[in-house]
Amino acid sequence: MSDVEQRLAAMEARLRRLEDEQAITRLILSYAPLVDSGCDRQVAELWEEDGVYDVDEIYMQGRDQLSGMVRSRNHQNWISGGCAHFAGPPHITLDGDEATAVCYTLMIVNTPDGFTVRRATANHWHLRRGTAGWKAVNRINRVLDGRTESPDLLASHFPEAVRHRPA
Amino acid sequence: MSDVEQRLAAMEARLRRLEDEQAITRLILSYAPLVDSGCDRQVAELWEEDGVYDVDEIYMQGRDQLSGMVRSRNHQNWISGGCAHFAGPPHITLDGDEATAVCYTLMIVNTPDGFTVRRATANHWHLRRGTAGWKAVNRINRVLDGRTESPDLLASHFPEAVRHRPA
Amino acid sequence: MSDVEQRLAAMEARLRRLEDEQAITRLILSYAPLVDSGCDRQVAELWEEDGVYDVDEIYMQGRDQLSGMVRSRNHQNWISGGCAHFAGPPHITLDGDEATAVCYTLMIVNTPDGFTVRRATANHWHLRRGTAGWKAVNRINRVLDGRTESPDLLASHFPEAVRHRPA
Repeated sequence: MSDVEQRLAAMEARLRRLEDEQAITRLILSYAPLVDSGCDRQVAELWEEDGVYDVDEIYMQGRDQLSGMVRSRNHQNWISGGCAHFAGPPHITLDGDEATAVCYTLMIVNTPDGFTVRRATANHWHLRRGTAGWKAVNRINRVLDGRTESPDLLASHFPEAVRHRPA
Repeated sequence: MSDVEQRLAAMEARLRRLEDEQAITRLILSYAPLVDSGCDRQVAELWEEDGVYDVDEIYMQGRDQLSGMVRSRNHQNWISGGCAHFAGPPHITLDGDEATAVCYTLMIVNTPDGFTVRRATANHWHLRRGTAGWKAVNRINRVLDGRTESPDLLASHFPEAVRHRPA
Repeated sequence: MSDVEQRLAAMEARLRRLEDEQAITRLILSYAPLVDSGCDRQVAELWEEDGVYDVDEIYMQGRDQLSGMVRSRNHQNWISGGCAHFAGPPHITLDGDEATAVCYTLMIVNTPDGFTVRRATANHWHLRRGTAGWKAVNRINRVLDGRTESPDLLASHFPEAVRHRPA
Protein backbone atom coordinates (compact mmCIF):
# COMPACT_ATOMS: atom_id res chain seq x y z
CA MET A 1 0.00 0.00 0.00
CA SER A 2 1.46 3.32 -1.02
CA ASP A 3 1.99 6.24 1.33
CA VAL A 4 -0.70 8.26 -0.46
CA GLU A 5 -3.15 5.39 -0.16
CA GLN A 6 -2.44 5.08 3.57
CA ARG A 7 -2.92 8.78 4.17
CA LEU A 8 -6.15 8.85 2.18
CA ALA A 9 -7.55 5.91 4.12
CA ALA A 10 -6.54 7.39 7.49
CA MET A 11 -8.22 10.68 6.65
CA GLU A 12 -11.37 9.00 5.40
CA ALA A 13 -11.66 7.17 8.72
CA ARG A 14 -11.09 10.38 10.71
CA LEU A 15 -13.64 12.26 8.62
CA ARG A 16 -16.15 9.50 9.15
CA ARG A 17 -15.75 9.71 12.92
CA LEU A 18 -16.35 13.47 12.85
CA GLU A 19 -19.39 13.02 10.63
CA ASP A 20 -20.74 10.25 12.87
CA GLU A 21 -20.46 12.47 15.91
CA GLN A 22 -22.17 15.27 14.00
CA ALA A 23 -25.02 12.99 12.87
CA ILE A 24 -25.56 11.78 16.45
CA THR A 25 -25.53 15.34 17.76
CA ARG A 26 -28.14 16.30 15.18
CA LEU A 27 -30.33 13.35 16.15
CA ILE A 28 -30.17 14.22 19.85
CA LEU A 29 -30.77 17.92 19.18
CA SER A 30 -33.78 17.09 16.99
CA TYR A 31 -35.70 15.70 19.93
CA ALA A 32 -36.58 18.99 21.64
CA PRO A 33 -37.92 20.99 18.67
CA LEU A 34 -39.86 17.95 17.42
CA VAL A 35 -41.39 17.10 20.79
CA ASP A 36 -42.15 20.73 21.68
CA SER A 37 -44.03 21.11 18.40
CA GLY A 38 -45.81 17.77 18.70
CA CYS A 39 -44.38 16.09 15.59
CA ASP A 40 -45.26 12.66 16.92
CA ARG A 41 -44.07 10.48 14.04
CA GLN A 42 -40.73 12.26 13.64
CA VAL A 43 -40.07 11.99 17.38
CA ALA A 44 -40.72 8.24 17.24
CA GLU A 45 -38.45 7.81 14.22
CA LEU A 46 -35.46 9.05 16.18
CA TRP A 47 -35.56 5.60 17.81
CA GLU A 48 -35.16 2.14 16.34
CA GLU A 49 -38.42 0.31 15.69
CA ASP A 50 -38.44 -1.21 19.20
CA GLY A 51 -36.31 1.46 20.90
CA VAL A 52 -36.75 2.37 24.56
CA TYR A 53 -37.28 5.74 26.20
CA ASP A 54 -37.06 5.16 29.92
CA VAL A 55 -38.09 8.25 31.90
CA ASP A 56 -38.54 8.08 35.65
CA GLU A 57 -42.13 9.26 35.10
CA ILE A 58 -43.00 6.97 32.17
CA TYR A 59 -41.48 3.97 30.33
CA MET A 60 -41.97 3.72 26.58
CA GLN A 61 -40.94 0.99 24.17
CA GLY A 62 -41.50 1.02 20.42
CA ARG A 63 -42.56 3.79 18.10
CA ASP A 64 -46.27 3.47 18.86
CA GLN A 65 -45.73 4.24 22.51
CA LEU A 66 -43.32 7.07 21.66
CA SER A 67 -45.67 8.77 19.23
CA GLY A 68 -48.58 8.09 21.58
CA MET A 69 -46.83 10.00 24.34
CA VAL A 70 -46.47 13.02 22.01
CA ARG A 71 -50.17 12.86 21.06
CA SER A 72 -51.33 12.33 24.66
CA ARG A 73 -53.49 14.95 26.29
CA ASN A 74 -50.83 15.41 28.94
CA HIS A 75 -48.13 16.27 26.43
CA GLN A 76 -50.44 18.39 24.28
CA ASN A 77 -51.21 20.44 27.38
CA TRP A 78 -47.51 21.20 27.81
CA ILE A 79 -47.39 22.49 24.24
CA SER A 80 -50.54 24.58 24.45
CA GLY A 81 -49.47 26.04 27.80
CA GLY A 82 -45.91 26.80 26.70
CA CYS A 83 -42.98 24.46 27.22
CA ALA A 84 -39.29 24.04 26.30
CA HIS A 85 -37.40 20.74 26.54
CA PHE A 86 -34.11 22.62 26.61
CA ALA A 87 -31.14 20.31 25.86
CA GLY A 88 -27.49 20.92 26.55
CA PRO A 89 -24.78 19.76 24.11
CA PRO A 90 -24.22 15.98 24.21
CA HIS A 91 -20.90 14.39 25.18
CA ILE A 92 -20.58 11.49 22.73
CA THR A 93 -18.40 8.37 22.78
CA LEU A 94 -18.19 6.47 19.50
CA ASP A 95 -17.44 2.77 19.20
CA GLY A 96 -17.77 1.77 15.53
CA ASP A 97 -21.46 1.36 14.74
CA GLU A 98 -22.51 1.95 18.34
CA ALA A 99 -22.30 5.09 20.45
CA THR A 100 -23.30 6.43 23.82
CA ALA A 101 -23.95 9.99 24.84
CA VAL A 102 -24.65 11.87 28.03
CA CYS A 103 -26.44 15.19 28.21
CA TYR A 104 -28.57 17.35 30.46
CA THR A 105 -32.06 18.58 29.77
CA LEU A 106 -34.21 21.20 31.44
CA MET A 107 -37.97 21.07 31.18
CA ILE A 108 -39.04 24.71 31.30
CA VAL A 109 -42.74 25.34 31.75
CA ASN A 110 -44.77 28.50 31.35
CA THR A 111 -47.00 29.19 34.38
CA PRO A 112 -49.18 32.07 35.54
CA ASP A 113 -46.15 33.18 37.59
CA GLY A 114 -43.76 33.00 34.63
CA PHE A 115 -41.37 30.34 33.42
CA THR A 116 -40.21 27.71 35.92
CA VAL A 117 -37.75 24.83 35.78
CA ARG A 118 -40.01 21.82 36.25
CA ARG A 119 -37.22 19.25 35.86
CA ALA A 120 -33.42 19.17 35.53
CA THR A 121 -32.45 15.75 34.26
CA ALA A 122 -29.55 13.49 33.38
CA ASN A 123 -29.88 11.70 30.03
CA HIS A 124 -27.95 8.70 28.78
CA TRP A 125 -28.36 7.63 25.14
CA HIS A 126 -27.34 4.40 23.46
CA LEU A 127 -27.34 4.70 19.67
CA ARG A 128 -26.69 2.38 16.76
CA ARG A 129 -25.98 2.81 13.07
CA GLY A 130 -28.35 0.84 10.86
CA THR A 131 -29.53 0.94 7.28
CA ALA A 132 -31.48 4.16 8.01
CA GLY A 133 -28.51 5.84 9.70
CA TRP A 134 -28.05 6.46 13.41
CA LYS A 135 -31.04 5.71 15.64
CA ALA A 136 -31.57 5.61 19.40
CA VAL A 137 -31.66 2.14 20.91
CA ASN A 138 -32.23 3.30 24.46
CA ARG A 139 -32.52 6.64 26.23
CA ILE A 140 -32.63 6.86 30.00
CA ASN A 141 -33.79 10.08 31.67
CA ARG A 142 -33.54 10.59 35.44
CA VAL A 143 -34.41 13.75 37.33
CA LEU A 144 -31.57 15.25 39.40
CA ASP A 145 -33.60 15.57 42.60
CA GLY A 146 -31.13 13.81 44.86
CA ARG A 147 -31.94 10.20 43.97
CA THR A 148 -28.69 8.23 43.62
CA GLU A 149 -29.47 6.73 40.24
CA SER A 150 -29.27 10.14 38.51
CA PRO A 151 -25.60 10.92 39.32
CA ASP A 152 -24.91 7.19 38.79
CA LEU A 153 -26.26 7.61 35.27
CA LEU A 154 -24.02 10.63 34.62
CA ALA A 155 -20.91 8.79 35.85
CA SER A 156 -21.74 5.63 33.87
CA HIS A 157 -20.74 7.39 30.64
CA PHE A 158 -17.11 7.65 31.84
CA PRO A 159 -15.72 4.10 32.22
CA GLU A 160 -12.75 5.17 34.37
CA ALA A 161 -14.72 7.50 36.63
CA VAL A 162 -15.24 6.67 40.31
CA ARG A 163 -17.80 8.45 42.44
CA HIS A 164 -16.63 9.68 45.83
CA ARG A 165 -18.83 8.10 48.51
CA PRO A 166 -18.91 10.14 51.71
CA ALA A 167 -18.38 8.05 54.86
CA MET B 1 -10.02 11.74 -13.27
CA SER B 2 -7.86 9.41 -11.23
CA ASP B 3 -9.04 7.53 -8.19
CA VAL B 4 -6.75 9.63 -5.95
CA GLU B 5 -8.11 12.84 -7.47
CA GLN B 6 -11.67 11.69 -6.82
CA ARG B 7 -10.98 10.78 -3.22
CA LEU B 8 -9.19 14.07 -2.58
CA ALA B 9 -12.06 16.07 -4.03
CA ALA B 10 -14.67 14.10 -2.07
CA MET B 11 -12.80 14.67 1.18
CA GLU B 12 -12.30 18.35 0.53
CA ALA B 13 -16.05 18.72 0.05
CA ARG B 14 -16.79 16.78 3.26
CA LEU B 15 -14.27 18.83 5.22
CA ARG B 16 -15.79 22.02 3.92
CA ARG B 17 -19.25 20.97 5.11
CA LEU B 18 -17.91 20.25 8.60
CA GLU B 19 -16.07 23.58 8.67
CA ASP B 20 -19.17 25.42 7.45
CA GLU B 21 -21.25 23.93 10.21
CA GLN B 22 -18.55 24.85 12.71
CA ALA B 23 -18.38 28.43 11.43
CA ILE B 24 -22.16 28.80 11.69
CA THR B 25 -22.16 27.34 15.19
CA ARG B 26 -19.48 29.84 16.22
CA LEU B 27 -21.50 32.72 14.76
CA ILE B 28 -24.66 31.68 16.61
CA LEU B 29 -22.78 31.08 19.87
CA SER B 30 -21.11 34.50 19.59
CA TYR B 31 -24.40 36.29 20.00
CA ALA B 32 -24.90 35.71 23.73
CA PRO B 33 -21.47 36.73 25.07
CA LEU B 34 -21.42 39.77 22.75
CA VAL B 35 -24.92 40.95 23.63
CA ASP B 36 -24.52 40.27 27.37
CA SER B 37 -21.37 42.39 27.39
CA GLY B 38 -22.88 45.14 25.23
CA CYS B 39 -20.50 44.87 22.26
CA ASP B 40 -22.96 46.66 20.02
CA ARG B 41 -20.97 46.76 16.77
CA GLN B 42 -19.87 43.13 16.94
CA VAL B 43 -23.45 42.01 17.61
CA ALA B 44 -24.63 43.92 14.54
CA GLU B 45 -21.87 42.44 12.38
CA LEU B 46 -23.19 38.91 12.94
CA TRP B 47 -25.91 39.94 10.47
CA GLU B 48 -25.70 41.00 6.86
CA GLU B 49 -25.85 44.76 6.27
CA ASP B 50 -29.66 44.73 6.06
CA GLY B 51 -30.25 41.58 8.11
CA VAL B 52 -33.40 41.10 10.18
CA TYR B 53 -33.78 40.17 13.85
CA ASP B 54 -37.47 39.58 14.39
CA VAL B 55 -38.29 39.16 18.10
CA ASP B 56 -41.89 39.04 19.26
CA GLU B 57 -41.07 42.05 21.48
CA ILE B 58 -39.15 44.09 18.90
CA TYR B 59 -38.41 44.02 15.16
CA MET B 60 -34.99 45.14 13.96
CA GLN B 61 -33.66 45.50 10.44
CA GLY B 62 -30.14 46.60 9.52
CA ARG B 63 -27.04 47.02 11.61
CA ASP B 64 -27.99 50.43 12.96
CA GLN B 65 -31.13 49.08 14.57
CA LEU B 66 -29.28 46.02 15.87
CA SER B 67 -26.47 48.01 17.48
CA GLY B 68 -29.02 50.58 18.71
CA MET B 69 -30.88 47.84 20.57
CA VAL B 70 -27.66 46.86 22.36
CA ARG B 71 -26.93 50.49 23.31
CA SER B 72 -30.54 51.16 24.39
CA ARG B 73 -31.24 52.02 28.01
CA ASN B 74 -33.46 48.97 28.23
CA HIS B 75 -30.73 46.56 27.19
CA GLN B 76 -28.05 48.32 29.24
CA ASN B 77 -30.28 47.84 32.27
CA TRP B 78 -30.29 44.10 31.69
CA ILE B 79 -26.49 44.11 31.66
CA SER B 80 -26.08 46.27 34.75
CA GLY B 81 -28.67 44.24 36.64
CA GLY B 82 -27.25 40.85 35.64
CA CYS B 83 -28.46 38.87 32.65
CA ALA B 84 -27.62 35.74 30.60
CA HIS B 85 -28.92 35.08 27.08
CA PHE B 86 -28.23 31.38 27.51
CA ALA B 87 -28.22 29.54 24.15
CA GLY B 88 -28.53 25.84 23.52
CA PRO B 89 -26.57 24.12 20.74
CA PRO B 90 -27.95 24.88 17.26
CA HIS B 91 -29.30 22.20 14.91
CA ILE B 92 -27.98 23.29 11.50
CA THR B 93 -29.04 22.32 7.98
CA LEU B 94 -26.60 23.29 5.22
CA ASP B 95 -27.58 23.92 1.61
CA GLY B 96 -24.51 25.16 -0.26
CA ASP B 97 -24.01 28.84 0.53
CA GLU B 98 -27.24 29.03 2.53
CA ALA B 99 -28.12 27.44 5.85
CA THR B 100 -30.86 27.37 8.44
CA ALA B 101 -30.60 26.59 12.12
CA VAL B 102 -32.97 26.09 15.01
CA CYS B 103 -32.04 26.58 18.64
CA TYR B 104 -33.47 27.45 22.01
CA THR B 105 -32.52 30.36 24.19
CA LEU B 106 -33.25 31.19 27.80
CA MET B 107 -33.17 34.76 29.03
CA ILE B 108 -32.08 34.48 32.66
CA VAL B 109 -32.39 37.63 34.73
CA ASN B 110 -31.00 38.48 38.12
CA THR B 111 -33.68 39.83 40.49
CA PRO B 112 -33.84 40.68 44.19
CA ASP B 113 -35.29 37.16 44.64
CA GLY B 114 -32.48 35.49 42.70
CA PHE B 115 -32.19 34.38 39.08
CA THR B 116 -35.39 33.80 37.13
CA VAL B 117 -36.18 32.54 33.65
CA ARG B 118 -37.75 35.59 32.01
CA ARG B 119 -38.18 33.96 28.60
CA ALA B 120 -37.75 30.51 27.01
CA THR B 121 -37.71 30.98 23.25
CA ALA B 122 -37.58 29.21 19.91
CA ASN B 123 -35.07 30.65 17.43
CA HIS B 124 -34.87 30.10 13.70
CA TRP B 125 -31.85 31.43 11.80
CA HIS B 126 -31.36 31.85 8.07
CA LEU B 127 -27.69 32.34 7.18
CA ARG B 128 -25.75 33.02 3.99
CA ARG B 129 -22.10 32.79 2.97
CA GLY B 130 -20.79 36.01 1.45
CA THR B 131 -17.43 37.64 0.88
CA ALA B 132 -17.08 38.22 4.64
CA GLY B 133 -17.97 34.64 5.51
CA TRP B 134 -21.24 33.41 7.04
CA LYS B 135 -23.69 36.07 8.19
CA ALA B 136 -27.26 36.02 9.47
CA VAL B 137 -29.88 37.04 6.95
CA ASN B 138 -32.82 36.60 9.28
CA ARG B 139 -33.33 35.45 12.85
CA ILE B 140 -36.80 34.88 14.25
CA ASN B 141 -37.29 34.57 18.00
CA ARG B 142 -40.65 33.58 19.52
CA VAL B 143 -41.37 32.99 23.19
CA LEU B 144 -42.69 29.53 24.07
CA ASP B 145 -45.63 30.77 26.12
CA GLY B 146 -48.31 28.75 24.33
CA ARG B 147 -48.75 30.87 21.19
CA THR B 148 -48.96 28.59 18.16
CA GLU B 149 -46.35 30.36 16.09
CA SER B 150 -43.55 29.28 18.45
CA PRO B 151 -43.91 25.50 18.02
CA ASP B 152 -44.68 26.20 14.34
CA LEU B 153 -41.27 27.88 14.11
CA LEU B 154 -39.56 24.87 15.71
CA ALA B 155 -41.25 22.43 13.32
CA SER B 156 -40.50 24.59 10.26
CA HIS B 157 -36.83 23.57 10.41
CA PHE B 158 -37.75 19.94 9.65
CA PRO B 159 -39.28 19.79 6.16
CA GLU B 160 -40.84 16.34 6.65
CA ALA B 161 -42.20 17.01 10.11
CA VAL B 162 -45.95 17.18 10.71
CA ARG B 163 -47.43 18.62 13.89
CA HIS B 164 -50.13 16.57 15.57
CA ARG B 165 -53.27 18.70 15.86
CA PRO B 166 -55.55 17.55 18.66
CA ALA B 167 -59.18 17.27 17.61
CA MET C 1 6.19 19.12 -3.40
CA SER C 2 3.52 17.58 -5.61
CA ASP C 3 -0.02 18.83 -5.85
CA VAL C 4 -1.31 15.65 -4.19
CA GLU C 5 1.17 16.03 -1.36
CA GLN C 6 0.07 19.63 -0.81
CA ARG C 7 -3.59 18.73 -0.75
CA LEU C 8 -3.02 15.85 1.65
CA ALA C 9 -1.04 18.06 4.02
CA ALA C 10 -3.65 20.84 3.90
CA MET C 11 -6.44 18.40 4.68
CA GLU C 12 -4.53 16.79 7.51
CA ALA C 13 -4.08 20.21 9.10
CA ARG C 14 -7.78 21.05 8.68
CA LEU C 15 -8.82 17.71 10.14
CA ARG C 16 -6.53 18.23 13.09
CA ARG C 17 -8.13 21.60 13.84
CA LEU C 18 -11.62 20.05 13.79
CA GLU C 19 -10.46 17.20 16.02
CA ASP C 20 -8.78 19.64 18.42
CA GLU C 21 -11.97 21.63 18.75
CA GLN C 22 -13.88 18.41 19.32
CA ALA C 23 -11.45 17.23 22.00
CA ILE C 24 -11.69 20.58 23.81
CA THR C 25 -15.48 20.52 23.62
CA ARG C 26 -15.48 17.03 25.13
CA LEU C 27 -13.20 18.14 27.94
CA ILE C 28 -15.39 21.13 28.79
CA LEU C 29 -18.59 19.07 28.57
CA SER C 30 -17.11 16.39 30.84
CA TYR C 31 -16.98 18.77 33.78
CA ALA C 32 -20.70 18.84 34.60
CA PRO C 33 -21.48 15.10 34.62
CA LEU C 34 -18.25 14.38 36.54
CA VAL C 35 -18.79 17.08 39.16
CA ASP C 36 -22.51 16.35 39.56
CA SER C 37 -21.68 12.71 40.24
CA GLY C 38 -18.78 13.48 42.55
CA CYS C 39 -16.00 11.86 40.49
CA ASP C 40 -13.36 13.88 42.29
CA ARG C 41 -10.20 12.52 40.63
CA GLN C 42 -11.60 12.73 37.10
CA VAL C 43 -12.73 16.31 37.67
CA ALA C 44 -9.22 17.24 38.84
CA GLU C 45 -7.60 15.54 35.85
CA LEU C 46 -9.41 17.88 33.44
CA TRP C 47 -6.83 20.44 34.59
CA GLU C 48 -3.04 20.47 34.31
CA GLU C 49 -1.21 19.40 37.47
CA ASP C 50 -1.14 22.98 38.81
CA GLY C 51 -4.18 24.28 36.92
CA VAL C 52 -6.39 27.03 38.31
CA TYR C 53 -10.17 27.11 38.78
CA ASP C 54 -11.01 30.63 39.82
CA VAL C 55 -14.67 30.94 40.90
CA ASP C 56 -15.92 34.13 42.52
CA GLU C 57 -16.93 32.01 45.53
CA ILE C 58 -13.74 29.93 45.80
CA TYR C 59 -10.21 29.89 44.29
CA MET C 60 -8.60 26.51 43.62
CA GLN C 61 -5.12 25.71 42.34
CA GLY C 62 -3.75 22.23 41.70
CA ARG C 63 -5.48 18.88 41.54
CA ASP C 64 -5.59 18.36 45.33
CA GLN C 65 -7.68 21.48 45.80
CA LEU C 66 -9.90 20.61 42.84
CA SER C 67 -10.64 17.08 44.01
CA GLY C 68 -10.98 18.36 47.58
CA MET C 69 -13.72 20.73 46.48
CA VAL C 70 -15.64 17.79 44.96
CA ARG C 71 -15.26 15.72 48.14
CA SER C 72 -16.16 18.65 50.42
CA ARG C 73 -19.27 18.44 52.56
CA ASN C 74 -20.60 21.52 50.80
CA HIS C 75 -20.36 19.97 47.34
CA GLN C 76 -21.59 16.56 48.50
CA ASN C 77 -24.68 18.30 49.87
CA TRP C 78 -25.44 19.69 46.41
CA ILE C 79 -25.27 16.18 45.00
CA SER C 80 -27.39 14.56 47.67
CA GLY C 81 -29.97 17.34 47.46
CA GLY C 82 -30.15 17.35 43.65
CA CYS C 83 -28.07 19.63 41.45
CA ALA C 84 -27.21 20.24 37.77
CA HIS C 85 -24.19 22.24 36.60
CA PHE C 86 -25.84 22.79 33.24
CA ALA C 87 -23.32 23.96 30.59
CA GLY C 88 -24.02 25.61 27.28
CA PRO C 89 -21.95 24.83 24.17
CA PRO C 90 -18.48 26.40 24.28
CA HIS C 91 -17.24 28.94 21.72
CA ILE C 92 -13.62 27.89 21.12
CA THR C 93 -10.69 29.76 19.59
CA LEU C 94 -7.69 27.61 18.67
CA ASP C 95 -4.12 28.86 18.48
CA GLY C 96 -1.84 25.90 17.81
CA ASP C 97 -1.28 24.07 21.10
CA GLU C 98 -3.20 26.66 23.08
CA ALA C 99 -6.89 27.50 23.05
CA THR C 100 -9.43 29.64 24.82
CA ALA C 101 -13.15 29.09 25.19
CA VAL C 102 -16.11 30.99 26.54
CA CYS C 103 -19.30 29.39 27.73
CA TYR C 104 -22.23 29.88 30.08
CA THR C 105 -23.23 27.64 32.94
CA LEU C 106 -26.35 27.47 35.05
CA MET C 107 -26.25 25.98 38.53
CA ILE C 108 -29.71 24.48 38.98
CA VAL C 109 -30.58 23.35 42.49
CA ASN C 110 -33.42 21.23 43.77
CA THR C 111 -35.26 22.88 46.67
CA PRO C 112 -38.45 22.16 48.64
CA ASP C 113 -40.14 24.62 46.23
CA GLY C 114 -38.79 22.91 43.11
CA PHE C 115 -35.79 23.60 40.91
CA THR C 116 -34.26 27.07 41.03
CA VAL C 117 -31.46 28.79 39.13
CA ARG C 118 -28.92 29.45 41.89
CA ARG C 119 -26.32 30.95 39.57
CA ALA C 120 -25.99 32.00 35.90
CA THR C 121 -22.31 32.40 35.15
CA ALA C 122 -19.79 33.41 32.52
CA ASN C 123 -16.88 30.99 32.06
CA HIS C 124 -13.57 31.58 30.35
CA TRP C 125 -11.22 28.64 29.78
CA HIS C 126 -7.55 28.63 28.81
CA LEU C 127 -6.43 25.20 27.60
CA ARG C 128 -3.13 23.69 26.46
CA ARG C 129 -2.13 20.56 24.59
CA GLY C 130 0.46 18.48 26.45
CA THR C 131 1.66 14.90 26.43
CA ALA C 132 -1.65 13.77 27.96
CA GLY C 133 -3.75 15.70 25.44
CA TRP C 134 -5.70 18.89 26.06
CA LYS C 135 -5.96 20.06 29.68
CA ALA C 136 -7.30 23.18 31.35
CA VAL C 137 -4.65 25.66 32.45
CA ASN C 138 -7.09 28.17 33.89
CA ARG C 139 -10.85 28.47 34.19
CA ILE C 140 -12.47 31.65 35.42
CA ASN C 141 -16.12 31.62 36.51
CA ARG C 142 -18.01 34.83 37.35
CA VAL C 143 -21.67 35.10 38.25
CA LEU C 144 -23.75 37.37 35.99
CA ASP C 145 -25.33 39.35 38.82
CA GLY C 146 -24.47 42.79 37.50
CA ARG C 147 -20.80 42.97 38.55
CA THR C 148 -18.74 44.44 35.72
CA GLU C 149 -16.09 41.75 35.64
CA SER C 150 -18.60 39.16 34.37
CA PRO C 151 -19.50 40.85 31.07
CA ASP C 152 -15.83 41.90 30.83
CA LEU C 153 -14.94 38.22 30.96
CA LEU C 154 -17.41 37.39 28.17
CA ALA C 155 -16.07 40.17 25.94
CA SER C 156 -12.42 39.23 26.59
CA HIS C 157 -12.80 36.15 24.38
CA PHE C 158 -13.37 38.37 21.31
CA PRO C 159 -10.19 40.40 20.68
CA GLU C 160 -11.90 42.94 18.40
CA ALA C 161 -14.97 43.43 20.56
CA VAL C 162 -15.59 46.74 22.31
CA ARG C 163 -18.11 47.12 25.10
CA HIS C 164 -20.50 50.04 24.84
CA ARG C 165 -20.12 52.18 27.97
CA PRO C 166 -23.24 54.24 28.71
CA ALA C 167 -22.44 57.86 29.56
